[in-house]
Amino acid sequence: MADLILTTFDWVPELPRGYVRDIRVRWALEEAGLPYRVESVPFRDRNGGHFARQPFGQVPWLTDGDMSIFESGAILLHLGNRSDALLPADPRARSEAIEWLFAALNSVEMASLPWSIFVFSGFNDDTPGWNRLDGFLGARLQHLEPVLAEREWLAGSFSVADILMADVLRLVDRFERLAGHPACRDYLARATSRPGFLKAHADQMAHFAAAD
Amino acid sequence: MADLILTTFDWVPELPRGYVRDIRVRWALEEAGLPYRVESVPFRDRNGGHFARQPFGQVPWLTDGDMSIFESGAILLHLGNRSDALLPADPRARSEAIEWLFAALNSVEMASLPWSIFVFSGFNDDTPGWNRLDGFLGARLQHLEPVLAEREWLAGSFSVADILMADVLRLVDRFERLAGHPACRDYLARATSRPGFLKAHADQMAHFAAAD
Repeated sequence: MADLILTTFDWVPELPRGYVRDIRVRWALEEAGLPYRVESVPFRDRNGGHFARQPFGQVPWLTDGDMSIFESGAILLHLGNRSDALLPADPRARSEAIEWLFAALNSVEMASLPWSIFVFSGFNDDTPGWNRLDGFLGARLQHLEPVLAEREWLAGSFSVADILMADVLRLVDRFERLAGHPACRDYLARATSRPGFLKAHADQMAHFAAAD
Repeated sequence: MADLILTTFDWVPELPRGYVRDIRVRWALEEAGLPYRVESVPFRDRNGGHFARQPFGQVPWLTDGDMSIFESGAILLHLGNRSDALLPADPRARSEAIEWLFAALNSVEMASLPWSIFVFSGFNDDTPGWNRLDGFLGARLQHLEPVLAEREWLAGSFSVADILMADVLRLVDRFERLAGHPACRDYLARATSRPGFLKAHADQMAHFAAAD
């Protein structure tokens, strides 16, 4: 079997460290126990070779034999097809994990990411636009709360859906927006205390620290 | 084979008509030639049964035998597994279609949807927050443009990735943000001139008109 290669930036500023999306892929690979190596591309000077692999100039991408895959959701789904530790084999449970994988990205992160851009840019002032964005995220958290209050993981057993949802919630929690949503906070604590996350996080921090 | 059932709202206001996400599912079902029927849930009074199927209180969801699936991305991926007209059988082409399916939702729509909320709320004034959101979308369109300039469809042949990307771009085009991106505009015109889209759009409009 060909080596799996995870490509990320060679360096990033302090602020995004620990939150670069390669952590999602590292975490999944750790959970599955799949061996991989990490390669780097320049953060400051993104060239044509980079855009050929990731058309939006971002990271990560995964190389698996003759396949090169971008988008963290697509990569995790691909890895899920290689390991029962990431996606359950039972068709109904698998379908449930996949819908929650999409919900993490397209229902929750679609609200949380623009919200976080406003927060770390200092645009979280009392304007109608900010209030609408904050309300958009608040509504999603409000609906997620009862779901997470009654289950340990989103789709029966731990899956790639939990990796994505937890990583999405990490950025929300970083700016203290999970106050008032104890089930979301407990779920996040459960997910991020897993050895797979701890290893992935330490590895990402070490990777960027090595470039300083 | 059990009937496929698409569930959407019984009624929506004028503004979202033609843009409710059931159109993505209708379009895919038309492209695949899969028979289905449509059921409705109340728009105004969303009850516990609704949240049990769609935890965020939105639409659509698809019922396929004993499976109930929410999230338009998850539904289209599920249908793609049932029809070569929606996802190519070749593993590399299939992987490419799936990464673009995620790119439509998590790279482009994550920028375009909050942007559209600002536009239709009249928050598209000259504030730092609005300018950042508009720049976020602009960067995604700028990177998408050369991709679409050199290919007819995102992953070789027409696939669910094109249904999602085109539907995402429709909302951008509605507010005239594709000016200056001729390849995006031509791609959108190509996609929305397909009989499957025209039927899906007419059916959605008729569904909501019938409830007035």
